[in-house]
Amino acid sequence: MTLSTKPKVLKLGDFEFSQARWDELSQIAEVINCESQNRDEFINDLQTKYNDITYIAREYNSVNVTGRFDAEIAQHIPSTVKGICHCTAGYDSIDVEPFSKLGIQISNVTDPVVGPTADVAVFLVLACLRNFFAGHKMLVSGKWPDEKVLECGGVDMGNTPQHKVLGILGMGNIGRAVKNRLKVFGFKKIVYYNRRQLSPELEEGAEYVSQDELLQKSDVIVVVVPLNPNTKHLIDRNAISKMKDGVILVNISRGLVLDEHVVTELVKSGKIGAFGADVFENEPHVSPDLYNLPNVVTLPHMGTHAFDATQDLQEWVIENIECCIKTGKLKTLVAEQKELF
Amino acid sequence: MTLSTKPKVLKLGDFEFSQARWDELSQIAEVINCESQNRDEFINDLQTKYNDITYIAREYNSVNVTGRFDAEIAQHIPSTVKGICHCTAGYDSIDVEPFSKLGIQISNVTDPVVGPTADVAVFLVLACLRNFFAGHKMLVSGKWPDEKVLECGGVDMGNTPQHKVLGILGMGNIGRAVKNRLKVFGFKKIVYYNRRQLSPELEEGAEYVSQDELLQKSDVIVVVVPLNPNTKHLIDRNAISKMKDGVILVNISRGLVLDEHVVTELVKSGKIGAFGADVFENEPHVSPDLYNLPNVVTLPHMGTHAFDATQDLQEWVIENIECCIKTGKLKTLVAEQKELF
Repeated sequence: MTLSTKPKVLKLGDFEFSQARWDELSQIAEVINCESQNRDEFINDLQTKYNDITYIAREYNSVNVTGRFDAEIAQHIPSTVKGICHCTAGYDSIDVEPFSKLGIQISNVTDPVVGPTADVAVFLVLACLRNFFAGHKMLVSGKWPDEKVLECGGVDMGNTPQHKVLGILGMGNIGRAVKNRLKVFGFKKIVYYNRRQLSPELEEGAEYVSQDELLQKSDVIVVVVPLNPNTKHLIDRNAISKMKDGVILVNISRGLVLDEHVVTELVKSGKIGAFGADVFENEPHVSPDLYNLPNVVTLPHMGTHAFDATQDLQEWVIENIECCIKTGKLKTLVAEQKELF
Repeated sequence: MTLSTKPKVLKLGDFEFSQARWDELSQIAEVINCESQNRDEFINDLQTKYNDITYIAREYNSVNVTGRFDAEIAQHIPSTVKGICHCTAGYDSIDVEPFSKLGIQISNVTDPVVGPTADVAVFLVLACLRNFFAGHKMLVSGKWPDEKVLECGGVDMGNTPQHKVLGILGMGNIGRAVKNRLKVFGFKKIVYYNRRQLSPELEEGAEYVSQDELLQKSDVIVVVVPLNPNTKHLIDRNAISKMKDGVILVNISRGLVLDEHVVTELVKSGKIGAFGADVFENEPHVSPDLYNLPNVVTLPHMGTHAFDATQDLQEWVIENIECCIKTGKLKTLVAEQKELF
């Protein structure tokens, strides 16, 4: 018997929808399921039983076991590690810099998250515009017959996209997918802000404006920026004060991009007409103060919570590992590392 | 003083979002608010204080006061009546024939209902595909933190449009608007059935199939046919038996197009994977047996329940009356009368 020379891949999380592809990968790699139960154990295990791993495949929810991948993890990570492959688009649970310094590549998932996450945005925009959740709640509380002469049992009327300006804050892959889906709904105008203006082809159907102009002119604002130190609490009291009274605000990026406490206060005051969110500052903790408001629509971070999407995400991680085994480079490096490796 | 020779318009319902246009109309017509409190009074009033009216403008919910416009109403309607203008698209609360025999024109609303109603379909399709209501309910019940290591607190995963076939049953204006909105979401294929195949331009993005083929091949079926004697209980036990197991069924047409009792039974059995509906057989009465099922998403007939949309609908009624005053013909006659006047 010869000693295995296959690179070792440590799996953090189940990756339960991609077994066939893991089996394929195991022809060229040794796949190990991480057994650490908490952060302390994980840090210890990294230095002992996992001290010769080459790749880490990291499901989003494994952060609940290991905690964030930060300088402390970097300090204890085996010198054999070449790549960390994160299983979703947002990698704010990883501090990239300490790993870059060690020459460790990091990948995130790009294409497969786009459609499913954009679909969430469309759902929340329609829900907020049209008061659909209020209608649903009235119906399932059995109150419709009590108010039969009133249209829809007296639920407040909503608005249609017509005569409304839609603002998309952040026009990466997901922002563009939101734009492409919503442009046929008949908004009067779609505007967007992005660090850079897009090519005419990519921005088609939307007009580039400054961030302030977007905040000031939009009736509906969809937040699709990545979370990073520049975007933390980007939507704070000052930003919201620039918005129209009764603005509809939808967040599908990360909870920390908004100051949730201020948002709650300004939904109550009526400044924000409706708020739709798939993401929250302290997930899974959301304040009843927020979610009990009648014009707030909440989802428990369901951006890519779908069979096909999850399978696609998981297989994307495996593709990154395979690519690195074959070429020495992960396939979809995170933005900060694109020039590094 | 001369006796008014302006035609009289009897308003059934408030038409509260179109006052400016009613004021305009009153330059060429005398507008009277109907004061009858129930059907008997209405029939009596038609023969007495309203016995010289020329037009009836009829809001959807006025059916709760007057009852359906049927042979009995036709029998008592003043001979002066030229036109009845209904304030929504579906005019199943009017029996057209007895009025046609009397030479009375009937109009419904076409264009303004299209977008808002199609938006409801998109919302319900996304809700059913992605399990969004189950997620929302889990979150607002405060249970998310209890299951923090499970993605989305353990809510069942949904599906994405990818790899799914969407079937649109009925490809009139609203069906096409549903198709145009959903085609960018990435369904594997969109098929449709309609009495007639559409022109290549109008059907673009969808494939014409037989009704049976649509029922058999679709993963998601949106019902958008008008209610008439041919479509009553079109979706019955036999039709559903042809569908895929776990099919997603969305109804935005009229409740009576589906056999609601059978639908409830087959959602319970799992044959129907999810059911979304804006319309019900006995509105405003909906059985808790149906609306309490976890994979059923219900709205209280909110198709056009929006400020802009309602204003547009109401103004459409006025335009029909103006058109008839000027030309002798209502602008948008119902389908059965298009060849008659």
